[in-house]
Amino acid sequence: MMKEFLKVIHYEEAVEKLITYRPFSEIESVNIADCCNRIAAQDVCSSENLPAFHRSTVDGYAVIAEDIYGCSETSPGFLQIIGEITMGQSAAIKLQKGQCCWIPTGGMLPEGANAVIMVENTDKLDDRTILAFHPVSLYENVMQSGEDIKIGQRAIKKGTVIRPADIGLLASLGIASMEVVKPYKVGIISTGDEIVEIEQKPKAGEIRDVNSHALYAAVKSCGALPFVYPLVRDQFDDLKQAVEGAIKENHILLISGGSSVGIMDATLEVLMSFPEAQMLFHGIAIKPGKPTLAVKIGEKLVIGLPGHPVSALTNFYILIRPLLIDGPIVNSLEGYLKLNIASQAGRDDFIPAVIEERDGQKMIRPLLGKAGLMSILSQSQGYIHIPYEQQGLKAGEKVKVIIY
Amino acid sequence: MMKEFLKVIHYEEAVEKLITYRPFSEIESVNIADCCNRIAAQDVCSSENLPAFHRSTVDGYAVIAEDIYGCSETSPGFLQIIGEITMGQSAAIKLQKGQCCWIPTGGMLPEGANAVIMVENTDKLDDRTILAFHPVSLYENVMQSGEDIKIGQRAIKKGTVIRPADIGLLASLGIASMEVVKPYKVGIISTGDEIVEIEQKPKAGEIRDVNSHALYAAVKSCGALPFVYPLVRDQFDDLKQAVEGAIKENHILLISGGSSVGIMDATLEVLMSFPEAQMLFHGIAIKPGKPTLAVKIGEKLVIGLPGHPVSALTNFYILIRPLLIDGPIVNSLEGYLKLNIASQAGRDDFIPAVIEERDGQKMIRPLLGKAGLMSILSQSQGYIHIPYEQQGLKAGEKVKVIIY
Repeated sequence: MMKEFLKVIHYEEAVEKLITYRPFSEIESVNIADCCNRIAAQDVCSSENLPAFHRSTVDGYAVIAEDIYGCSETSPGFLQIIGEITMGQSAAIKLQKGQCCWIPTGGMLPEGANAVIMVENTDKLDDRTILAFHPVSLYENVMQSGEDIKIGQRAIKKGTVIRPADIGLLASLGIASMEVVKPYKVGIISTGDEIVEIEQKPKAGEIRDVNSHALYAAVKSCGALPFVYPLVRDQFDDLKQAVEGAIKENHILLISGGSSVGIMDATLEVLMSFPEAQMLFHGIAIKPGKPTLAVKIGEKLVIGLPGHPVSALTNFYILIRPLLIDGPIVNSLEGYLKLNIASQAGRDDFIPAVIEERDGQKMIRPLLGKAGLMSILSQSQGYIHIPYEQQGLKAGEKVKVIIY
Repeated sequence: MMKEFLKVIHYEEAVEKLITYRPFSEIESVNIADCCNRIAAQDVCSSENLPAFHRSTVDGYAVIAEDIYGCSETSPGFLQIIGEITMGQSAAIKLQKGQCCWIPTGGMLPEGANAVIMVENTDKLDDRTILAFHPVSLYENVMQSGEDIKIGQRAIKKGTVIRPADIGLLASLGIASMEVVKPYKVGIISTGDEIVEIEQKPKAGEIRDVNSHALYAAVKSCGALPFVYPLVRDQFDDLKQAVEGAIKENHILLISGGSSVGIMDATLEVLMSFPEAQMLFHGIAIKPGKPTLAVKIGEKLVIGLPGHPVSALTNFYILIRPLLIDGPIVNSLEGYLKLNIASQAGRDDFIPAVIEERDGQKMIRPLLGKAGLMSILSQSQGYIHIPYEQQGLKAGEKVKVIIY
């Protein structure tokens, strides 16, 4: 036992090592409509002005602003109607002093015009004349060419998580596809002599393979591509063969094994038998998930998670998710702690919690009691992280819940 | 103009009407691993105990608790080792008074045992004897059968958004598939004589079809199934034919048309020409998106959005998203307003905003200035909702941002 205790590293160090050795991300070109929630692999700059022409933002009359300076309800301006702008067509009209023309919302401002007066502020005297009851300032009710985006301006910043508004912006600029970061392929292997497929009725002492299913869903919910491999018994050769295949086909491999120290050691032995293997850590000062280990094999990353489903999934959230999606996308929420939480100094604790509302304030209720219940994890909305140096948290303290 | 003003309804009323006439949701059975982010269509109850047997939660020795009551470092208890539990196998061993056996984490408790002492609290005297330095309480370090979930207990509540931990729980119970709510099919039609495909270089007065792409991504990001139809000119017959096809194939149809009042009226005319048509509203006291309209045709819902991309997408978030996903999934965040915002009483305003951190506090910066810039919407992370009766918000006020 002592051997393992000596190797245990801090949570922050484990996260940092994983991030440092994160496999290289490839890039692919994707149609913009399918880029939602993808990460921009490079800056996207505009090759045109948006809008391309001066557009009216209201229904009204295109005017020369100077013609109606100083006009009012009691002393309206008179303007001659010389035509009408049609949507989607270049304005053939050219305004001269004292003239105006009808323009719909979105219509292209005709030559000579420099503002639009809203229809509500006018009255039609006859077919050829309007009264203007308000002055307009220069380019009032007009979106000027290039006002949204100018030629050469950056529309999307590298690293941005693309959302529908970004896709709208790209479409406006005529950009039909863009370079985004390719999602990681993540292999998932469940090991353990006691594990059976979920469709089977476990015999005494056996349990169903929870991790393949929960980790598949967890990987997918991060936007990465999960691949589940068949169950592997606790045999060196079987596991070695399975790992060999899976690291060829994936960027990251998750192996969930028994929580027992012996089985974690066996997994480590298999991983270290690869010629390019480099051990990153074996054991983290965290609860749950102390026996978690990581080995770099060539450019690939293999992470050994505890076999217990609650530990495996919690460790996924605290260690693997930060690798798959970038920090800011992970949601968190602040509130006031409802109960004291005890915690040993000398390790990072991760406590499942639910968020409640009381008098419009967010209250955080830690789900204490027996660790390791899947039903508890299922009821919780996120976790509270108690750092290494802290001995616990007091009821009433402001705490952060990181949402699953 | 007066006709339209009279018809304008409040934002809350519009949302309520849409929710009331939301098409009926169908149900489908889906493999649990693919249920992530889907909504449970019914309660799921367990037909077995979880765990199925008493399991050890540590590596150690299965004991009879009473045998080592009162033992200590200075006065250890002696126990006879009679064997070892193997993972995945039924325990053939039966403990008698004074006996113990090795048990790994996750191992099945043998008959007669009622607790586990951690290996750290023992010492092996010889191959057949251990010293126990601490007492254990009844069922200490044991997860009892049914402690996680009992037979007949509800594991998943109807209406729950399924997450990886729920999938883990279902897998533990041997449930391989479950009934979830089928996503809505949402048709998307862009109309307007000035609209061209995004690959085209618009001629003077034309603009690219932004809405088909942005709405496709927005619908998809809500978990619904978007279908984009070809562009439609502003012609009664063309639009009628397109709507006829699309309402057959979808639950909800989004038509984005010119922002011009005339074009919205034309869309309404087409929709009301269907024999089963029932107008829900035409015009909402909101900014942006006042001319938005909704018509129920049979069991289907058709929503006419303004053609301007910023208005169309904003209206998607404030009106359509609540139909597609249930309230609690929509993220929001509180912070302190950085600038005053003016707003007219008598309408609901929706202002794009960015969230900044200052001294560990969240500050909300509204993106004021000219409305209708797609680049502004792309920069913002969410919106501030200023309700009907309010005349604006003051800098320093606590405000909520609803995340896009």
